[in-house]
Amino acid sequence: MASPRGSSPYDHTFDVAQLAHIELMSPDPEGTERFFTEFLGMSVSERRGQSSYLRAYEEWYHHSLKITEAPEPGVGHIGWRTRSPEALARRIDALDQAGVAGAWLDDERGHGAAYRFALPSAQELELFWDVDYFDVPTDQKSGLLNRPQRRPARGIPVRRIDHVGITAPDVSANRAFFEDVLGFRTREFITTDDGAVTIGAWMSISQMVHELAMVADPQQLSGRFHHICYWYGIPQHCADAAELLREHGYTIECGPGKHGLAQGIYVYAIEPGGNRVELYGDTGYLIQDPAWEPLQWRESQIDWAKAVYGTVTDSFFEYCTPPVGTALPVAATSL
Amino acid sequence: MASPRGSSPYDHTFDVAQLAHIELMSPDPEGTERFFTEFLGMSVSERRGQSSYLRAYEEWYHHSLKITEAPEPGVGHIGWRTRSPEALARRIDALDQAGVAGAWLDDERGHGAAYRFALPSAQELELFWDVDYFDVPTDQKSGLLNRPQRRPARGIPVRRIDHVGITAPDVSANRAFFEDVLGFRTREFITTDDGAVTIGAWMSISQMVHELAMVADPQQLSGRFHHICYWYGIPQHCADAAELLREHGYTIECGPGKHGLAQGIYVYAIEPGGNRVELYGDTGYLIQDPAWEPLQWRESQIDWAKAVYGTVTDSFFEYCTPPVGTALPVAATSL
Amino acid sequence: MASPRGSSPYDHTFDVAQLAHIELMSPDPEGTERFFTEFLGMSVSERRGQSSYLRAYEEWYHHSLKITEAPEPGVGHIGWRTRSPEALARRIDALDQAGVAGAWLDDERGHGAAYRFALPSAQELELFWDVDYFDVPTDQKSGLLNRPQRRPARGIPVRRIDHVGITAPDVSANRAFFEDVLGFRTREFITTDDGAVTIGAWMSISQMVHELAMVADPQQLSGRFHHICYWYGIPQHCADAAELLREHGYTIECGPGKHGLAQGIYVYAIEPGGNRVELYGDTGYLIQDPAWEPLQWRESQIDWAKAVYGTVTDSFFEYCTPPVGTALPVAATSL
Amino acid sequence: MASPRGSSPYDHTFDVAQLAHIELMSPDPEGTERFFTEFLGMSVSERRGQSSYLRAYEEWYHHSLKITEAPEPGVGHIGWRTRSPEALARRIDALDQAGVAGAWLDDERGHGAAYRFALPSAQELELFWDVDYFDVPTDQKSGLLNRPQRRPARGIPVRRIDHVGITAPDVSANRAFFEDVLGFRTREFITTDDGAVTIGAWMSISQMVHELAMVADPQQLSGRFHHICYWYGIPQHCADAAELLREHGYTIECGPGKHGLAQGIYVYAIEPGGNRVELYGDTGYLIQDPAWEPLQWRESQIDWAKAVYGTVTDSFFEYCTPPVGTALPVAATSL
Repeated sequence: MASPRGSSPYDHTFDVAQLAHIELMSPDPEGTERFFTEFLGMSVSERRGQSSYLRAYEEWYHHSLKITEAPEPGVGHIGWRTRSPEALARRIDALDQAGVAGAWLDDERGHGAAYRFALPSAQELELFWDVDYFDVPTDQKSGLLNRPQRRPARGIPVRRIDHVGITAPDVSANRAFFEDVLGFRTREFITTDDGAVTIGAWMSISQMVHELAMVADPQQLSGRFHHICYWYGIPQHCADAAELLREHGYTIECGPGKHGLAQGIYVYAIEPGGNRVELYGDTGYLIQDPAWEPLQWRESQIDWAKAVYGTVTDSFFEYCTPPVGTALPVAATSL
Repeated sequence: MASPRGSSPYDHTFDVAQLAHIELMSPDPEGTERFFTEFLGMSVSERRGQSSYLRAYEEWYHHSLKITEAPEPGVGHIGWRTRSPEALARRIDALDQAGVAGAWLDDERGHGAAYRFALPSAQELELFWDVDYFDVPTDQKSGLLNRPQRRPARGIPVRRIDHVGITAPDVSANRAFFEDVLGFRTREFITTDDGAVTIGAWMSISQMVHELAMVADPQQLSGRFHHICYWYGIPQHCADAAELLREHGYTIECGPGKHGLAQGIYVYAIEPGGNRVELYGDTGYLIQDPAWEPLQWRESQIDWAKAVYGTVTDSFFEYCTPPVGTALPVAATSL
Repeated sequence: MASPRGSSPYDHTFDVAQLAHIELMSPDPEGTERFFTEFLGMSVSERRGQSSYLRAYEEWYHHSLKITEAPEPGVGHIGWRTRSPEALARRIDALDQAGVAGAWLDDERGHGAAYRFALPSAQELELFWDVDYFDVPTDQKSGLLNRPQRRPARGIPVRRIDHVGITAPDVSANRAFFEDVLGFRTREFITTDDGAVTIGAWMSISQMVHELAMVADPQQLSGRFHHICYWYGIPQHCADAAELLREHGYTIECGPGKHGLAQGIYVYAIEPGGNRVELYGDTGYLIQDPAWEPLQWRESQIDWAKAVYGTVTDSFFEYCTPPVGTALPVAATSL
Repeated sequence: MASPRGSSPYDHTFDVAQLAHIELMSPDPEGTERFFTEFLGMSVSERRGQSSYLRAYEEWYHHSLKITEAPEPGVGHIGWRTRSPEALARRIDALDQAGVAGAWLDDERGHGAAYRFALPSAQELELFWDVDYFDVPTDQKSGLLNRPQRRPARGIPVRRIDHVGITAPDVSANRAFFEDVLGFRTREFITTDDGAVTIGAWMSISQMVHELAMVADPQQLSGRFHHICYWYGIPQHCADAAELLREHGYTIECGPGKHGLAQGIYVYAIEPGGNRVELYGDTGYLIQDPAWEPLQWRESQIDWAKAVYGTVTDSFFEYCTPPVGTALPVAATSL
């Protein structure tokens, strides 16, 4: 099912084209919105009901972030755009064939009809084709045709959403679902030394190493969220954001550093609602070899996978949202 | 022909997967090799006949650069890997249907049989599927599974090839060829203000804005080369390379700066053989919208297209290789 | 007089301790203030009469910039703090002995009594000892004891004033005045190839290569201003500022680049009042050798003095304020 | 004695002008030399007896680092240049008056007669005036008059020595010695919350926050060495050096990060001989206020003092050389 139309294993088509948006649940929606607007430079496209919709200045669509008030932090749903209307139809067929139930949602903001369904690990995903392009006011337009809006003079402004991280009680089952039903490819993964258990998987639908990161849920629970990642492209901006956020009272969990896995230059903060936010200073490496085989890291190699430089704290593996008896991460600098 | 298998204009397949290598002609092959090895940190995989084959430390294949001794600088050929054996076959069919003659070459170094043919603008291209992965000596291997070789302690080492730039007497004809016959997509282009003449086109086969840049040949000649680009991913490395190269007697034509077009952070040097080399400090933006329409810059907007900051000198538009009565560029700092 | 108390030429004391503030004249004081606050992250300490007083977030005093409404751009005066009350007295003695008339001003904002006098090139300077430390509101204080105020989430915030640039009809006369009467030292200078005429001099009162830059006035006029420089310490911030300012309609005259002279990493913008503003991304090199001899650049070496990389445009040598029949600089990217 | 000639407490003269060189003891002198030459880009000026002498490419003197073979790592001596011959005489007088015995050494390499004496904490210091400037071969000279040698195409080359760190059983006693006898000034210091015990002191003889760092010896021992620091000026180079060194088998103890104290951007590595080496990516802030009072950090504020971002590991406070029953630091990434 991974390559429905090609005769060769390399002749694969990614029907899912991009990570389009994430709905974050927040017990402090005003704090969460302020974090993303005043400090990460995002703009509110719309507020409606219990939710606000935000976009970064290099994003063309209505939003990449939906913040919804809720008793606990976590992820509401994760939205993906397909590469064509036909690709959407093919993936719904694949879901049907895999026995996955879903439902059409017609009244969401920012895009057309979306097909909503649950992962084996219970988080909700949606697929859609039609999108609303955001109409940037003329006085905010850039001289750059490839940038919908001028770089804002506010915070350390992120440019676009990069990837999402979730946890799963059974990473292998989730991985198989993403590969077989949704057509993702695994780019790197971590297993126990004997290879029996997959601890994490980094999967993509493009040259990027991952639009999706999955790690084993520390309490074997389902439905939980690990992090949302926005992209800078400039490594220095990770340090700038860390300094700015910390001075203004936010927790920098770890970084800046450079992950070995995917080679991403990172910093992790905790937003006021309690969710983890990664900021990406470089794209890491891009996969151009069409015959790329998934890279398998063994647990004994995890030190290199975690970081070329900088640290990844224990809380990174222990805290996810909603937390279940887990304390909020403290800053690496306080350890 | 652009979308041979899909019913939707969005359901496009890129049969050409990646820019694999470039053959540079050099009247000073030792100087050219020294430039790429001592100062850009590349390694020689093999020397054979009049040619040497080089790769960067994050490249897995045998080479991305072939340097061949010749009376004049310029490009020998440009090698592209397809996404599968089937994709290769499909593209040869498309070439046949377009009436483009080609020939199989079976004895090249570093890859399997390649189909060689000429562009409307006369540069030679080749397509192939099979590649030789370079066998990095154990003592040079990295702790990073996604990096074939340790970062060398030599020069300001580039990580991988990024894109190629050529000139054409008729950019529109070349663009149509790449779109219709080879399945590339145009991401950005520049025209006269009335839209009648295309001055340049930036085309890609992936999320990247371009693996191929084409600009109007300043003397309406065919077969000429504009630049080869290697990638750092770290903007500071453009400045480091500029400082290092200049101190060691090389010409920095222009930059560091940031192009508006593609948003690439750049610096341009002239290697001892006379060819222009671009170094890329950032990936620029990535295209994730499957419905992306080519962005049309008008000549009156060219100032933004050229640079957000930094300069692009006149020689950039006047010098290409082999030069025909054109002087070597001088450094922007000397203007 | 250069070494009034020491028996050795090396046993020199700098009585002037630091560049404390600059008064910029502006025909558009609101635009000028907005430039420094919204885009360079400075704060207004006080507005009074036709002037506003601003400071950067790592500055402890009341202000480093006074903006005063005036028909034309230019410099009002340049304020220097001495190293002690005794040092102030010594320098006033030296001025008296040199026949330079001055006057005490007792009612300026932000510091105690200041002794005001004119340079040979007619710009007004003042020397003082007492300063007012700015009382940062508690909720804006940093966790860093060495930083009076948290890094603002606004613009690309500068950290402190770095140096000032003026023009002079006779650079040598000015240089002698600064050396002999005020105790500055020349660190680097540029002369004609025969050494007969000094075109520019970079002078300091510390390890820094310059707190004062002087270049020959392009029209042999007196009293004119070349630039004010604020400091980042992070090279990337020059690029960030250039991109931000340009997108918001400001002129980037040249840079980012790296001057050879002083090795400063720079970008130059024109503020709305018409004055040139330099932003410094690195400190350049520091002078630690107590026997440092002034470095003499000949005009034929000026290409290296101007830039290691990046460009310095002709307008840099032609435009100063108030302008006299000289057009505003245009961006280097538009050349 | 701190201000021997001035009537005001501000009218202070620094008789010691600069940290000139450090002698590192190494049980693996070849490994130590290779670390500093192949990876930090330094050059060997001379080898003689059991020692080699190295300099960085922006250093004018014969050496800033002397590596001497020894059974254990540690510091041989620390050399300081005075500001004049008179200043040297004044400091020897001060040492005499303080009852500190010393001896003249006339046959050292790279400088004239030096006066050698021991600190209260037993490390050996020397003071001298005359220095030998290194004669850089013509073909290695830079086009920059302010740079004695071209930037080497080797490793991530450091530019100059920055500061030295030692431990002391009684930091207060050492601090008093440096202030009263040698004329240093304390810029920042850390005490217990009640202020009774000084845990560390950062002292300088210039605008820099420190040429000398002192921390409490973890085992109350004397004569031990904490770290030598070389300077880049470019924050990215800390990350580059960390990546390069780690890939080639060296231990990165902690960083890259930004200390709160002094605001230095840092990374710490352990060289093959076992000594700690800091690399400085920024100068931190400069002290320009002549009335600067030492900043007192309380132990409860140490988290901010340690790092704005990044981590400082426990080993940083526990390991110094020669080690006494202390294991070599492991990389922060392995914790």
